[in-house]
Amino acid sequence: MIIDGKKVALDIRNRIKSHLENFPHTTITLATVIVGSNPASQLYVGMKHREANAAGIQSKRIELDENISQQELEQQISLLADDDDIHGILVQLPLPKHLNKEKMLEKIPPKKDVDGLTDINMGRLLQGQKQLVPCTPLGVMRLIEAYGIKTSGKNAVVVGRSSLVGLPQVLLLAERGADATVTLAHSRTQDLAAICKNADILVSAVGSPALINEAFIKPGAMVFDVGVTRLENQTIQGDVDFEAAKKIAAGITPMPGGTGPMTVACLLENTILAATLQGVLPRSH
Amino acid sequence: MIIDGKKVALDIRNRIKSHLENFPHTTITLATVIVGSNPASQLYVGMKHREANAAGIQSKRIELDENISQQELEQQISLLADDDDIHGILVQLPLPKHLNKEKMLEKIPPKKDVDGLTDINMGRLLQGQKQLVPCTPLGVMRLIEAYGIKTSGKNAVVVGRSSLVGLPQVLLLAERGADATVTLAHSRTQDLAAICKNADILVSAVGSPALINEAFIKPGAMVFDVGVTRLENQTIQGDVDFEAAKKIAAGITPMPGGTGPMTVACLLENTILAATLQGVLPRSH
Repeated sequence: MIIDGKKVALDIRNRIKSHLENFPHTTITLATVIVGSNPASQLYVGMKHREANAAGIQSKRIELDENISQQELEQQISLLADDDDIHGILVQLPLPKHLNKEKMLEKIPPKKDVDGLTDINMGRLLQGQKQLVPCTPLGVMRLIEAYGIKTSGKNAVVVGRSSLVGLPQVLLLAERGADATVTLAHSRTQDLAAICKNADILVSAVGSPALINEAFIKPGAMVFDVGVTRLENQTIQGDVDFEAAKKIAAGITPMPGGTGPMTVACLLENTILAATLQGVLPRSH
Repeated sequence: MIIDGKKVALDIRNRIKSHLENFPHTTITLATVIVGSNPASQLYVGMKHREANAAGIQSKRIELDENISQQELEQQISLLADDDDIHGILVQLPLPKHLNKEKMLEKIPPKKDVDGLTDINMGRLLQGQKQLVPCTPLGVMRLIEAYGIKTSGKNAVVVGRSSLVGLPQVLLLAERGADATVTLAHSRTQDLAAICKNADILVSAVGSPALINEAFIKPGAMVFDVGVTRLENQTIQGDVDFEAAKKIAAGITPMPGGTGPMTVACLLENTILAATLQGVLPRSH
């Protein structure tokens, strides 16, 4: 089975659009901040704006000069933080090397932090009090839910220990309600293939092209490919050798069309949640 | 081998005492807050004061009435937060049921949060920017260091997913530098014995007496018992069946005298770190 991220993402977008149609006098706005002219960042931000607009969410694009100072960047973020008409703030990463990401993130109010990257939102996730959580691991959870994949008591393996994907993925898979037994593997893991082969649910978030081949996959496993490597020919390649893996896995995300669209859909979902936390939209149900 | 937490804790206490003797005109003060008269809480807080004083750290004990309101509790915390002569604030948990722990924790400044429980300190741990981290999992790491136990590439299993112990333990074992492959198991884990039997390093933090017996232990494993159950006869019992496990494990913490003293030692260590973060003590080395 191909796990169709494009379709599930479209369902989420349509659900948001219908929800917002109930509030014709309310405008929800997502602000994106992009520093410099990295082409991949431009591409990602452009896609986020298109999807937001298709869901009925307005967007505001702030483009800042590559050489902006830390102080000026923080001032720009503070303007958005103080603006009641802005409900979500997304700063496209990575920033140019001279800028301090942590200090910048401190300027984003937790309730507008649609990427779930601030210390407070990360801390709430760790405390079992999650609100806004990182979009990529949330997207994997939404695929699991959409396909009715059982997680309770199952063995999950997450490969990669980034604070953006791997670590929150471990917490989301292991939390009460999901209840998977989760193993966190990474570059220092010995015999990665054997560990992955034990996974009923495998999430790879490394960025190492075709790292995961048939020797890594348990027959019947569900495989989620989150790693993205941009090849010289401008195509993207996941962590998983798709053709090899799909013969053994029961379900697998393609690349593109798998976890990528879900990241964007969860950004929209987080923007709605942010507006709800700010009291601009009512709590549904 | 018995992993002697009492001895390592004493070493830490003595190191802190020597360090503080370099600053005879500086007084470091740990404030403890205890609500109500739970005898176990009284016992723990008393021990923390004794150990602090033995290390040359002053302590201040605030006892509050069982029926204190949330607002009054928060006011008391705010007084300590604003007092430059107080360097660490520890609120003994659990609180009486009518009080909101999360709202109380928000009043503790992250730099005085010697239990590492605030959202911001938890978030920093998840982001790989740790400062003050929870004392019990930190104590296990200090035992691992003191005994020169290799973690890189080893399989570690953490049983129990509390935000106070299990989850931060996973992060500390898997972070760069420690580099273990870590599995998080819990009450919904299937075949817990088989999963534990794969662990080179096993940390149990459940609170289920003698849950871990010889069938759970890989020959040569290092076993850290963090679970504490208070029996009717007022003795304490760990998660590990010590007599059965010690025949198979290469190293094991006893109970008492294992991870318990380390929790208190790490509270002292965190108090010194807190004072350092506040600029009251210089950064050493």
